[in-house]
Amino acid sequence: MTMTYKSPEIGQEISCVMKGIQKELLLNNDKLKLILKQVLKKNKFTILKSIYKAFSSQGFTALILLAESHLAIHTYPEYNSIYFNLYSCRGPKDAEATFNLVKKQLNPKEVLFYKENQIPIVS
Amino acid sequence: MTMTYKSPEIGQEISCVMKGIQKELLLNNDKLKLILKQVLKKNKFTILKSIYKAFSSQGFTALILLAESHLAIHTYPEYNSIYFNLYSCRGPKDAEATFNLVKKQLNPKEVLFYKENQIPIVS
Repeated sequence: MTMTYKSPEIGQEISCVMKGIQKELLLNNDKLKLILKQVLKKNKFTILKSIYKAFSSQGFTALILLAESHLAIHTYPEYNSIYFNLYSCRGPKDAEATFNLVKKQLNPKEVLFYKENQIPIVS
Repeated sequence: MTMTYKSPEIGQEISCVMKGIQKELLLNNDKLKLILKQVLKKNKFTILKSIYKAFSSQGFTALILLAESHLAIHTYPEYNSIYFNLYSCRGPKDAEATFNLVKKQLNPKEVLFYKENQIPIVS
């Protein structure tokens, strides 16, 4: 017997900007990688591949390819913020637990969610 | 003199599901990769790294790390659809031209945008 996994038609996505993150954490790319990996593991996501880029000026990007879709972050040390994007095709509400755990670890002062592909507050 | 690029505080994101894509194109991962690369190049994005995964059952994931953020797609041949996620920190409306070019190439019958992190129509 072969078991084949069938995705729901529309996956769960969480996209946001987390603001007011402590500078020390925001500049520690290794710590950020570790947080993401630990949280994904805790939520039983399977990491298949990942790519990272620390920009020479400032900022860090992590793209993690999951068996269940992907997680992306971009850091903006100049604004004390991180863009977070998790897409999961395991089912409704699935991304929320992971988002909440990452949020707990990063401890932002504010979270801005994208609405209709835009965050209205652009300073 | 050193020129340093400063991102806007909030990047432009386009996340959607494109439905009703022709099966032949949807199953041609090399063609999909080529379309993404060509469109990104046309819009003067800089591809720094990329990872791909063709799933053994079905489906294909591409994560492309850009100097200007990232592009992610996931294909769902079982639903004739593709999830598309482009995040750019070059400025307002920046992602739209790229999205429109990709859409033109993929020619979906319908595009569902995420609103408040959810697409309300889940069949």
